[in-house]
Amino acid sequence: MVESLGVTVVLADYVVGASFDDVPTAVVRESVRSLLNWAGCAIGGSGHETVDRALAAVSPFAGEGVARLFGRVEKTDPLNAALLNGISSHVFDFDDTHLKTIIHPAGPVASCLLALAEVRPMTGAELLHAFILGVEVECRIGNAVYPAHYDIGWHITGTAGVFGAAAAAGKILGLDRQQMVWALGIAGTQSSGFREMFGTMCKSFHPGRAAQNGLLSALLAQQGFTSSDRVLEAPRGFAHVMSTERDFSEITDGLGDHFEISLNTYKPFACGIVIHPSIDGAVQLRTDHDLKPADIARVELKVAPLVLELTGKKTPRTGLEGKFSVYHSVAAALTYGAAGEKEYSNACVADPAIMALRDTVEATADRTVRDDEATVTVFLKNGKTLSKYVSHALGSLERPMSDKDLEAKFSGLCEGILTPAQTATAIQSYWDAPSIQDAKQLIKVAVKT
Amino acid sequence: MVESLGVTVVLADYVVGASFDDVPTAVVRESVRSLLNWAGCAIGGSGHETVDRALAAVSPFAGEGVARLFGRVEKTDPLNAALLNGISSHVFDFDDTHLKTIIHPAGPVASCLLALAEVRPMTGAELLHAFILGVEVECRIGNAVYPAHYDIGWHITGTAGVFGAAAAAGKILGLDRQQMVWALGIAGTQSSGFREMFGTMCKSFHPGRAAQNGLLSALLAQQGFTSSDRVLEAPRGFAHVMSTERDFSEITDGLGDHFEISLNTYKPFACGIVIHPSIDGAVQLRTDHDLKPADIARVELKVAPLVLELTGKKTPRTGLEGKFSVYHSVAAALTYGAAGEKEYSNACVADPAIMALRDTVEATADRTVRDDEATVTVFLKNGKTLSKYVSHALGSLERPMSDKDLEAKFSGLCEGILTPAQTATAIQSYWDAPSIQDAKQLIKVAVKT
Repeated sequence: MVESLGVTVVLADYVVGASFDDVPTAVVRESVRSLLNWAGCAIGGSGHETVDRALAAVSPFAGEGVARLFGRVEKTDPLNAALLNGISSHVFDFDDTHLKTIIHPAGPVASCLLALAEVRPMTGAELLHAFILGVEVECRIGNAVYPAHYDIGWHITGTAGVFGAAAAAGKILGLDRQQMVWALGIAGTQSSGFREMFGTMCKSFHPGRAAQNGLLSALLAQQGFTSSDRVLEAPRGFAHVMSTERDFSEITDGLGDHFEISLNTYKPFACGIVIHPSIDGAVQLRTDHDLKPADIARVELKVAPLVLELTGKKTPRTGLEGKFSVYHSVAAALTYGAAGEKEYSNACVADPAIMALRDTVEATADRTVRDDEATVTVFLKNGKTLSKYVSHALGSLERPMSDKDLEAKFSGLCEGILTPAQTATAIQSYWDAPSIQDAKQLIKVAVKT
Repeated sequence: MVESLGVTVVLADYVVGASFDDVPTAVVRESVRSLLNWAGCAIGGSGHETVDRALAAVSPFAGEGVARLFGRVEKTDPLNAALLNGISSHVFDFDDTHLKTIIHPAGPVASCLLALAEVRPMTGAELLHAFILGVEVECRIGNAVYPAHYDIGWHITGTAGVFGAAAAAGKILGLDRQQMVWALGIAGTQSSGFREMFGTMCKSFHPGRAAQNGLLSALLAQQGFTSSDRVLEAPRGFAHVMSTERDFSEITDGLGDHFEISLNTYKPFACGIVIHPSIDGAVQLRTDHDLKPADIARVELKVAPLVLELTGKKTPRTGLEGKFSVYHSVAAALTYGAAGEKEYSNACVADPAIMALRDTVEATADRTVRDDEATVTVFLKNGKTLSKYVSHALGSLERPMSDKDLEAKFSGLCEGILTPAQTATAIQSYWDAPSIQDAKQLIKVAVKT
């Protein structure tokens, strides 16, 4: 029996009792946008060797192949599907961001739900509601311990994400209050993932494993597997053991009044967010002035100091290194008007034309420039100068990606994996998610055939 | 490529290069004793509802049933077998203890290996060597961060155990140095488990999950799944993120010169270790003087203060509560000469004869008494007084359980699960472990038929 109304119980209670009817339309719409963005990332990343290797490792021991993998032809069991789709969706670092905590919210929660949907019938509305609640749980827990928890070295998408996945799966499974409390407890005691792993395959393993572990937590709780009733607040529980600071009011205040998924953002560009203002400015200059690379003499950037600290690589040699080069990023953006995975391929980074333009780019760090500001100035060979000041990059909360932007991003990620017709069908299915009868439709349209 | 000789690389290197021929005979013998003790606990705990519920949760999604569960008839896949055998082996809190760190070493490592043995042929010697190395890895990592790590609230059997399981499985899989480093990294980034979970089913989930996660880590590393090369020592790695203090020399000094498994101990009694001196004294008095409960007027105990703090429950109502009652424990020990699971059943705790004797027991805390000391004094109805001073309880490093003691404990745990003939065969198989050709023999003798 739950003994007292601690933070964990309050949160579990909310999830158990929440009704989809009480969710504002705009919040539902944002959840659909988040899901579309997540699905595109999962499809786009599905052929990455990180997924190949994980699949090779788990396949010999996997259960009945009833669960499909986004962007692939293989099937596996739902627990492993949660893991693998979670890896796919994060492997490009192109998924969504809850800026308050830098949690990537969809990875753990959507990967969990779209694996569970294979064996547990649910409508689109039920899926979206569980998704909204899962994101609420992980982001509120993140809010309670951020930034201290992150500063210690925890990869918060994994550590907080596992709670979100457990809550979402628990909602679908119809857990009662005690079971939901246990699910959060079982999830919490698996909370893990070091930032030390950034730059290795383990980074995308974290949201995948959070999805899988959260799903397992809900399945265990459904069977009466017990845990603490106070995983979040106990002296030897999550917020004390894994953080030096904590504010529990972030978890309980205004539950149901506002929704953290409303604060979700989507990356228009397949690289670290600090370069986004510069890329954005470059893309706008190219579009507004119909710029051609051949017209450009040189480029100047005025950026925040963090940009050069994190992405100051002058001569990147690989696609991955290109993501840490504001110089390459701006050269590619001026050339192609985009900065997707294609612009961060090894081929693009080694393209002599891109390299030549890149070498003309000069960047100056300026302490008066905010992290999401930048000024891009292009000096043309004809003597003219064009300049663009970006006060908030595309994809920020102040200048969100439009539905069309999200569709274009999705299409780009599906290239070479789904046919254009399949991609169009998939996009439409996601927009229709609130009204579809069987959430499995969202999987069917996203696999390779 | 491994870039520098950090602690993680040194440890991985040792595991990869270690040869069984270099392990002293006494160390091998202790590993056999540890394994026998672990197997008894896994068989004895196999019918617990914790195992039932976990099995019910994972079964629908489990892979091909090629792996057997100790003490049961069901089969599952090796990853889930590692989980479930790990739960069984710890659910009674009756398994082994590395007293320097209070890690229960066998749970994560043996559960991992005896699941892997189902699909990867290995000799008894190979199994024992991997077991010794896995215990070495987890206990050395534990030594490096204990007690600070434990004091924060981490259940060290889970958090350190996952490294041991990964190293042991990696040794069997023949990982090269880079793969072993990655296996430790993948394991570390899953390191988890709160002490807050003590008293719930999640406590035994921790070693089970450590076994399973460690096995997965080695399987992933074998496929080239990358992680950090510095999971132990990096500023955002295990020892900094999960502990406030650390001494890396504990990990690297004297590798191969001494073996942590030599420091392993086994519980003769199925309760917290603080009551053991009192129980030990009671059992000795009963044996030495052929005591009958009917002869006893009253009992006095002189114990360390911690005994009453942790196990001062005067009137336990359930078997579990009985484990937290030095009064019940001594009454049962004087009556039956034992303190196994049977003496901590609900029936025994509610037995009027036991209750009557229990109510005569008085305990005095004395600050001059060490935690592993006690004096038990029995006042007989005939006016005589018998007293026994225990300076180190049976099962301590100073007074280890004999092979015969371990056999008796094993037999007690197998009662009602294996037949006496099966139990005798099992014991012999474990003593023969160093020379058996197929380690699967150790599983075959331990399952219910």
